[in-house]
Amino acid sequence: MSMRSIHARFAGMVLALLLCVCAAAQAQQPTDPLPSWTDGRAKSAILDFVRRVTQEGGPDFVPPPERIATFDNDGTLWAERPIYFQLAFALDEIKRLAPSRPDWADKEPYRSVVAGSIDGLVASGEKGLLDILAATHAGMTTEDFARAVSDWLASARHPEKNRPYAELVYQPQLELLAYLRANGFKTFIVSGGGIEFMRVFAESRYGIPPEQVVGSSGRVTLRTSPDGRPQLYKEAEVEFVDDGPGKPVGINRFIGRRPILAFGNSDGDLQMLQYTAAGTGPRLALILHHTDGEREWAYDRKSHIGKLDKALDEGRAKGWIIVDMKSDWTSVFPPER
Amino acid sequence: MSMRSIHARFAGMVLALLLCVCAAAQAQQPTDPLPSWTDGRAKSAILDFVRRVTQEGGPDFVPPPERIATFDNDGTLWAERPIYFQLAFALDEIKRLAPSRPDWADKEPYRSVVAGSIDGLVASGEKGLLDILAATHAGMTTEDFARAVSDWLASARHPEKNRPYAELVYQPQLELLAYLRANGFKTFIVSGGGIEFMRVFAESRYGIPPEQVVGSSGRVTLRTSPDGRPQLYKEAEVEFVDDGPGKPVGINRFIGRRPILAFGNSDGDLQMLQYTAAGTGPRLALILHHTDGEREWAYDRKSHIGKLDKALDEGRAKGWIIVDMKSDWTSVFPPER
Repeated sequence: MSMRSIHARFAGMVLALLLCVCAAAQAQQPTDPLPSWTDGRAKSAILDFVRRVTQEGGPDFVPPPERIATFDNDGTLWAERPIYFQLAFALDEIKRLAPSRPDWADKEPYRSVVAGSIDGLVASGEKGLLDILAATHAGMTTEDFARAVSDWLASARHPEKNRPYAELVYQPQLELLAYLRANGFKTFIVSGGGIEFMRVFAESRYGIPPEQVVGSSGRVTLRTSPDGRPQLYKEAEVEFVDDGPGKPVGINRFIGRRPILAFGNSDGDLQMLQYTAAGTGPRLALILHHTDGEREWAYDRKSHIGKLDKALDEGRAKGWIIVDMKSDWTSVFPPER
Repeated sequence: MSMRSIHARFAGMVLALLLCVCAAAQAQQPTDPLPSWTDGRAKSAILDFVRRVTQEGGPDFVPPPERIATFDNDGTLWAERPIYFQLAFALDEIKRLAPSRPDWADKEPYRSVVAGSIDGLVASGEKGLLDILAATHAGMTTEDFARAVSDWLASARHPEKNRPYAELVYQPQLELLAYLRANGFKTFIVSGGGIEFMRVFAESRYGIPPEQVVGSSGRVTLRTSPDGRPQLYKEAEVEFVDDGPGKPVGINRFIGRRPILAFGNSDGDLQMLQYTAAGTGPRLALILHHTDGEREWAYDRKSHIGKLDKALDEGRAKGWIIVDMKSDWTSVFPPER
């Protein structure tokens, strides 16, 4: 054997040895699927639950078609402060449309909204809010509405965080959604927000396609457009409110199967969590507690938006997983683009 | 080289040659994905459409998330004669429940139904039909209803074909559903039938999970059962009729995306076909024409069930694919189990 071939064999052995060592190291330290979650009770509960329901032959195994996970949106998948982002869209739309609506100049609540006074809107009560929603969410085709939402998301910025609204999604939840899907779960949004509003960004931001978005809706009717094409028009009539007791109803209507995992953040999610937890077999109910006044906002029992009171008590009493934003998450929002 | 090793090498060469020949033969004759479809215009149109929308880089390529295919159920995926199978279920349920309902003994339409007289039911008109539906489709939990449907499917037999109803699905359509899914399509049912009824068998018979079934529905409310569990109750109130102009509305509500392929068989599918065909890019609209009085039933313009009149004219005028059951399908139902 020549020196050259001895060297070649030696190099080959070293390389093989290195590959073994690396593989072993990798086996010992598998990639963390939830890097933005700190090692605590919440993360352990999630990892343990997924391990159990995916373990074939195990006592808690759940076949993939039944691995349904439902997530609230506002305050669970993205932020909801200082006002629901969909309301911010509606107010911005009023300002955008105002030049073409001179009749709004002296009429409340439009005048206040255009002037940037939220007090005037609040003073107009529920009637005023419904007027704003009707003016911005009805009287157009579903396609035109989706375009308006898309344009707004591309241009508007959050007043406090100074970032596009669609960047204020929670990084740890993006990891959780991807982790669940990688383990055969089908992930759904079940939110009080408007279904047509959320569908515009749910696929690109969360990887959740339109047909897996459940939300509140207005009536939609089929009409023939002037060019003879069948078009769907959004009407100014509330059809379904996907909040509180409406959430299990929405889940039944759209999904037709009881989830095995549900994640919410407010009393509006209580019935969804109860309904999920009441099923037979392994179930995981999670609540995001907004405890981080520094990186996000801190609020719960006294808040007008995302009030978390009864669900917090019941969750603690029943051993649901209360995710503490401040201590359970190493990061809140994704890095700025 | 010994004779033995020469033999061994020769045998190896022959084997390798055989493998090559077989592989080449297989490449020349790929497995037919639609063996129950005869080689004709309908089959060609389907194969060509799927080839075009899946050809990456091609002018008609459609990304997988947008490959939405919607199928009507009654008369498109399974038979609908002599009466809609869901109505057969309702009538059988009346008979099953009658012993516990002595108040029905002298009351129409129950008395006629129990006596097996369809004339008495017809005479009672729409009111009678709604009474029958309310008595069999409301006043129980969604879970109890699903169990009743499941029990019926396991025991009842079609009066003319003398087979369980769930065996009267169309074999060529099962192949088409599987073929579409193998090519990245998501397959949905969009039917005038009851959503809770169809979900019981759609997954096992068609491979379509509950969340991909769109149908008519009654109101469902959340209540706490006597044992303290949250339960969903079916109420005797029609909530949504997924037929005719309701189909595009149902598609928008549940799917949120315009299909690129739709398959129906009656005038109740016309708007779904129009809505699908009116989208931009490649679209395929198909109508099943019941022309086979021998293997199935022959009916169209004059039929009370599955009337196909306007949609047949419009389909022919617009070049939609009219599938002729008699000539386009080599078999209708799957072999008996």
